[in-house]
Amino acid sequence: MDTRPIGVFDSGFGGLTVLQELVNSLPKEDFIYFGDTLRVPYGNKTVEEIETYSSQISKWLVQHDVKSIVVACNTVSCMALPYLQRQFSIPFFGMVSAGIESVLSFSSAPKQSNKVGIIGTKNTIASRVHEKDLRMAGFEGVLVELACPLFVPIIEEGVTDDGVWRSIVEYHMHDMKKENIDAVLLACTHYPILSEYIQGYLGNQVQLLNPNHFISDALARYLKDYNLQNATGGSVSLNVTGSTLSFNAFCHRFFEFRNDTVSVINIDSLI
Amino acid sequence: MDTRPIGVFDSGFGGLTVLQELVNSLPKEDFIYFGDTLRVPYGNKTVEEIETYSSQISKWLVQHDVKSIVVACNTVSCMALPYLQRQFSIPFFGMVSAGIESVLSFSSAPKQSNKVGIIGTKNTIASRVHEKDLRMAGFEGVLVELACPLFVPIIEEGVTDDGVWRSIVEYHMHDMKKENIDAVLLACTHYPILSEYIQGYLGNQVQLLNPNHFISDALARYLKDYNLQNATGGSVSLNVTGSTLSFNAFCHRFFEFRNDTVSVINIDSLI
Repeated sequence: MDTRPIGVFDSGFGGLTVLQELVNSLPKEDFIYFGDTLRVPYGNKTVEEIETYSSQISKWLVQHDVKSIVVACNTVSCMALPYLQRQFSIPFFGMVSAGIESVLSFSSAPKQSNKVGIIGTKNTIASRVHEKDLRMAGFEGVLVELACPLFVPIIEEGVTDDGVWRSIVEYHMHDMKKENIDAVLLACTHYPILSEYIQGYLGNQVQLLNPNHFISDALARYLKDYNLQNATGGSVSLNVTGSTLSFNAFCHRFFEFRNDTVSVINIDSLI
Repeated sequence: MDTRPIGVFDSGFGGLTVLQELVNSLPKEDFIYFGDTLRVPYGNKTVEEIETYSSQISKWLVQHDVKSIVVACNTVSCMALPYLQRQFSIPFFGMVSAGIESVLSFSSAPKQSNKVGIIGTKNTIASRVHEKDLRMAGFEGVLVELACPLFVPIIEEGVTDDGVWRSIVEYHMHDMKKENIDAVLLACTHYPILSEYIQGYLGNQVQLLNPNHFISDALARYLKDYNLQNATGGSVSLNVTGSTLSFNAFCHRFFEFRNDTVSVINIDSLI
């Protein structure tokens, strides 16, 4: 039994899809979410900047006595996770290994997949970390990788217009559709919000692989194995570095946890 | 006669539409363009950050011996122009006064306009600087102001797909179309790239007001009045703080000046 909270962070809103999965799977845990909404997007930042920012956030979470940290952002997971794990003694859970697990779990299922698409931000796709890790794990199928840079800004603007989404999904995924993939990995924590449009465009024969489920499984296993579960929690604390207005609107639109107070953390207090 | 170059800067690519107009109108001048592509977008930055960044860039331009500076960005013009003008002794030309001039010039034309739309980034529209300055200048018509936050990221991604643009323009401008405006001010230097789609959506009875022409007129008048014209120049130097790849692609797609070398300026060298 360990009643300390679990830290979850992202550059902005996307990590809320992971938080939602964690809250559903581990309802007795306390969670502290940190969204660096002032410095979002991380997509155009250098590795050094992403290391600095994610290290500042991790320090802040450690100061708030978290027992582990979920890096709910594929870009940070690709670019800075080993760096963070070296700096801090508590365990980090990242999106990449969850993504690898979800691809392997699908491709070893009875209906074997030999062609898997991976979609993410430019930084995530350019890093080729998923490809490298999948090959190291023995995946022998065909990989089709594609950056979809418009998805994040349009989600963050809160666009829910069907016409806009259909045209943007077709614009980005047109070439991937022609590849006749069997499954596609959503390698960006924003993308589960678009599942309906992506599925609708690619067709029901393509399986959407959402790593959020696997990251929550990995965390649950760890808490159980090390006897660190909490039986008395259930709270969610939301913290952002930028304006709370759009964050609140986003929470209310897409998620079940609806805190009345989202705290604003001054970035000058992050060291 | 003054052979010193003219400085032009923006947070990223948008200012290139202004540079194009300046190069066409003042072909014998030398220009130094600075795009802060590493720290783009400025839209989610605080006033203090925008003052610091634009002051660093202005210092860099002054060190390169420019005779005047064109702030080719509406957001910076709205938020930091008086601050910059206090700091430096050379004259600054900003987008807001050019926008005001273009609205007044239209509304005093034989076919009077009483209803003018203003479109820009969230920061620009929230500042209400155009409205305040137009009222101070005696404009008595109706103003309809609207932020179009998706235009910049989609332009910067280099999207030229008709279907995407038609759906995004309709998404943002649907409410403005219903207002039956007579003219619309493009209060963001990116937007002239979209002129065709905006005109197509609003219809030919709505006049598009592009302030770029007015800023180049103001600069030309100043150079002539103070005898600071150059008769021997004609060069364009392009400088960015981020990757040159997307900048080059953007230049080649939309503009006539196609430098083979775009210089990368290390932001640590900006003080």
